[in-house]
Amino acid sequence: MGDYELSDLQHGKAECRLVRVDRSGEHHVLHDLNVTTQLRGDFATAYTEGDNSHVHATDTQKNSVFALAREHGVTSPEAFLLVLADHWAAQPWVTGTWFAAEQFAWERLPANGHSFVRSGQETRTAWVQTYGDDRFVLAGLKDLVVLKSTGSEFHGFPRDRFTTLAETDDRILATSVTATWRYGSGQARPPEGVDYDAMHAAVRTALLDAFARTHSLALQQTIHAMATAALDVSPEIAEIRIACPNKHHFLVDLTPFDLDNPGEIFFAADRPYGLISATVSRAGGAGEPRAWSGIG
Amino acid sequence: MGDYELSDLQHGKAECRLVRVDRSGEHHVLHDLNVTTQLRGDFATAYTEGDNSHVHATDTQKNSVFALAREHGVTSPEAFLLVLADHWAAQPWVTGTWFAAEQFAWERLPANGHSFVRSGQETRTAWVQTYGDDRFVLAGLKDLVVLKSTGSEFHGFPRDRFTTLAETDDRILATSVTATWRYGSGQARPPEGVDYDAMHAAVRTALLDAFARTHSLALQQTIHAMATAALDVSPEIAEIRIACPNKHHFLVDLTPFDLDNPGEIFFAADRPYGLISATVSRAGGAGEPRAWSGIG
Amino acid sequence: MGDYELSDLQHGKAECRLVRVDRSGEHHVLHDLNVTTQLRGDFATAYTEGDNSHVHATDTQKNSVFALAREHGVTSPEAFLLVLADHWAAQPWVTGTWFAAEQFAWERLPANGHSFVRSGQETRTAWVQTYGDDRFVLAGLKDLVVLKSTGSEFHGFPRDRFTTLAETDDRILATSVTATWRYGSGQARPPEGVDYDAMHAAVRTALLDAFARTHSLALQQTIHAMATAALDVSPEIAEIRIACPNKHHFLVDLTPFDLDNPGEIFFAADRPYGLISATVSRAGGAGEPRAWSGIG
Amino acid sequence: MGDYELSDLQHGKAECRLVRVDRSGEHHVLHDLNVTTQLRGDFATAYTEGDNSHVHATDTQKNSVFALAREHGVTSPEAFLLVLADHWAAQPWVTGTWFAAEQFAWERLPANGHSFVRSGQETRTAWVQTYGDDRFVLAGLKDLVVLKSTGSEFHGFPRDRFTTLAETDDRILATSVTATWRYGSGQARPPEGVDYDAMHAAVRTALLDAFARTHSLALQQTIHAMATAALDVSPEIAEIRIACPNKHHFLVDLTPFDLDNPGEIFFAADRPYGLISATVSRAGGAGEPRAWSGIG
Repeated sequence: MGDYELSDLQHGKAECRLVRVDRSGEHHVLHDLNVTTQLRGDFATAYTEGDNSHVHATDTQKNSVFALAREHGVTSPEAFLLVLADHWAAQPWVTGTWFAAEQFAWERLPANGHSFVRSGQETRTAWVQTYGDDRFVLAGLKDLVVLKSTGSEFHGFPRDRFTTLAETDDRILATSVTATWRYGSGQARPPEGVDYDAMHAAVRTALLDAFARTHSLALQQTIHAMATAALDVSPEIAEIRIACPNKHHFLVDLTPFDLDNPGEIFFAADRPYGLISATVSRAGGAGEPRAWSGIG
Repeated sequence: MGDYELSDLQHGKAECRLVRVDRSGEHHVLHDLNVTTQLRGDFATAYTEGDNSHVHATDTQKNSVFALAREHGVTSPEAFLLVLADHWAAQPWVTGTWFAAEQFAWERLPANGHSFVRSGQETRTAWVQTYGDDRFVLAGLKDLVVLKSTGSEFHGFPRDRFTTLAETDDRILATSVTATWRYGSGQARPPEGVDYDAMHAAVRTALLDAFARTHSLALQQTIHAMATAALDVSPEIAEIRIACPNKHHFLVDLTPFDLDNPGEIFFAADRPYGLISATVSRAGGAGEPRAWSGIG
Repeated sequence: MGDYELSDLQHGKAECRLVRVDRSGEHHVLHDLNVTTQLRGDFATAYTEGDNSHVHATDTQKNSVFALAREHGVTSPEAFLLVLADHWAAQPWVTGTWFAAEQFAWERLPANGHSFVRSGQETRTAWVQTYGDDRFVLAGLKDLVVLKSTGSEFHGFPRDRFTTLAETDDRILATSVTATWRYGSGQARPPEGVDYDAMHAAVRTALLDAFARTHSLALQQTIHAMATAALDVSPEIAEIRIACPNKHHFLVDLTPFDLDNPGEIFFAADRPYGLISATVSRAGGAGEPRAWSGIG
Repeated sequence: MGDYELSDLQHGKAECRLVRVDRSGEHHVLHDLNVTTQLRGDFATAYTEGDNSHVHATDTQKNSVFALAREHGVTSPEAFLLVLADHWAAQPWVTGTWFAAEQFAWERLPANGHSFVRSGQETRTAWVQTYGDDRFVLAGLKDLVVLKSTGSEFHGFPRDRFTTLAETDDRILATSVTATWRYGSGQARPPEGVDYDAMHAAVRTALLDAFARTHSLALQQTIHAMATAALDVSPEIAEIRIACPNKHHFLVDLTPFDLDNPGEIFFAADRPYGLISATVSRAGGAGEPRAWSGIG
């Protein structure tokens, strides 16, 4: 047996599917979340000896999520995760925390104030993690699927022995945007009283608008335009990471059938796909790699 | 070796991901389909002897889908499947056909006429199948996720030895609607010149409106209300089948934590789920089981 | 409002994840099932009036599954579904039933008699459905993924305007087998005392062996060979349905890179895929379409 | 417009489904991989200006994967990713690389040397990433689903206001193991001539055996036992990370039905689930966070 060291000890409850119905207003409001908790701390003897005296049972963590939702309400996913962070900051043996939420969107049906239809494929995301007194808030979205049927070129790339791709000055550009941004403008603790819903909505609109307006010479360029649009619209954002698959739509060669194909008929391919990513930060801001721990 | 009989011989190409960009108008229009073909006919020797002389290669079927999309255009999924049916009705050894399409929805972004975002989780569905000269057109939708945060009761059910469920006069009712309807009002061949998009939109609206407006005493009742609303709004529909999972949202018991829970905090469960279904038809219409062959 | 008719009324609990640990022998035995119940009967007023007095609550159905597993044990999925059928045959308002089970395979680890690893991707399937006193037992498997790296040809198919596929005398043949067979040799009620596990194992072996041994001129031929092998090995089977996607593996064209590719480097494609199916029955057996209702 | 900085620039081709048939021996050998490439380097002008002169087109990267598989063969996933690393180390503008592979397992059928059935749900994983001359090799597995039907306890955990979980001295312990380990014993470059397949097989066996043999007082303890078993069996491993969901199997309360349940009937729940993880390293080894960049 060797001499080994333990690190990165975490435990929590994943994917608590919490739905809160806010009946306080004229119309019901739904908060539909998928919440994951992870605690970090002084848990080594559970691993080495099966001694659970420092282990916050994941069942207790689940109960806490539901009970704290009742005690403190759920407004935005970010605000709710900060409630969780406050709760566990006061617990023994916990030195750090990591919380994640997915939020699913619902649209109210016109008939009354309590009927809804799920809207959109995309998922809103949020994370809070703490290291002692330092805390980080990240927000984002994933599975935002967008497509441009023109206004996208790709040429000028180097050609080597394995290059066969033709250059093009008109192609379909389609992707599924995953974007995650860190609030805080450099300081670790986010400002009080922020309206996370409004900020998220503004960033989403900026991302979509930049995607649409950018005449794209490369998906990289479109990613950069989206990222800078988000930073432009929301001064609270310190940095943003965007990853985009290039969901290839290939123009079908119809010449064997004596048919032309003037940018009309495409085959949407599944795999493989290009995958492009970047981080864009405000100049001079301190990087915060701890904020991104465990965030894909 | 026994004496065996062959039946139900089918072959085709599944999940051809066809995207057509219609550039004819001021704004681009997207038709984003997932098309499956299946031919039925005199193919027995392929099975018994590996003799492919009657086999329409599935690769050829795929090519045909893309080429016929260019030759005939794609307006609605139903109309495009009828183009495929016409094409293969003229092919040798084919005595029947089965075609399916899924259509994915896109919403145009405001910036220009050629940028889009995927809208909604739901998928529009369509099938055409033919038996000689008889042809059937079915349309539908799936993954239409809806929820009512009040206006749903469930009580009065019989109690046996295994019954523990409490009666309730206020619960969340959530489901993911799968609805499929047959056009034709009894005759096998659909009328010419119908606007499948408009009919589909009217049915979808009727389904959502009935879901919202029905004060539900059982998911069965809601299903019936949705089905009859569809038949009411669209005289072209002969019958409609609806299947709905009961996506349970359980009120969390917070009493161990000295908290009440007045219809506010719910746990959204995955499995198991209730599953309820029914068919509603116009009285006196002939049933057409052939129309539903191979349709889930 | 029109005059409408109701039919195909069903309700039940889907996907009850039941695990039974049989501790009676020297080693533990796991039965890991996913069980779905569906009752058919005199339930119309639930739909038309929200009157639940005939509705077997799906929660009660779930409880019954778990309790009956304790009372009657779980040996094979088929036998357990027959227990469910017997139970509900005695319930009021129920005129027919439909039960499905998926069974997941576990392999015992050598260290002791109570540790297991999930084995295989495939799922064993079973259905029992009843119509009054008639009952049908079907068994099967799905997601059985197999591949031949040689011994597969495809040529001799007709060429039309849309045909571009080259003929080949050596290709990879890969598929994911879905096979479902009906027990009963024509009579509706299965024999007592049958060993469903042994029959299933024999059929699975016969399917795999036929796949491997058949020099394939068409996937159709391989399907036929598998189906007849199953009927040969198990006289209890009246008919079998097999559906196989053709999971295309395309030989990569490396000539642009001055490389040959003698059957070595393939690209495994996702979509589209060929889809081939057939039913093979004992000659003279009565078809039993009711047995296949609602079975994909 | 702000003053922004770009970082973490990556592009590549994701999920190249490469199947190599090695026909050199008496029996065919399959290598079935899902390969992803990512290049890091001097690509900023593609983002800021749409200048692709430094962009290695992802289509070229895909071609390279298939061509290099032909030129250099595929033995293990780790060895093949090192081939890719060598190739791109020599390319202009590339300062670092990140490659991932999933490998799917096939078992040869007894009938002949070229027929196979997919075996197991688990996936073997591998990564190679380079930073200039530093290179890191990681290997692992995921979706290895294991279960113990006894030999697992959970008690002694602290109880707070939100704790309701009962203590137990006999429960089902089930999980899906994700394990990833870094080769190198501290030095960045792995030794030449290592047999990655043999090392992987030894680690897999050690993980399974430790899972089975450990009488578990906590899933944490089982994770620790698995990790140390891996380090014990393979001196080439510098550190290993394991993450395990606690796939809860709840004993069903059958007392309402006048039935006992002596550890026999369980409900297998989907969500939420516990999630436990840790890293175990050789004492004194330098941590290598760069090796784990982008590895979930």
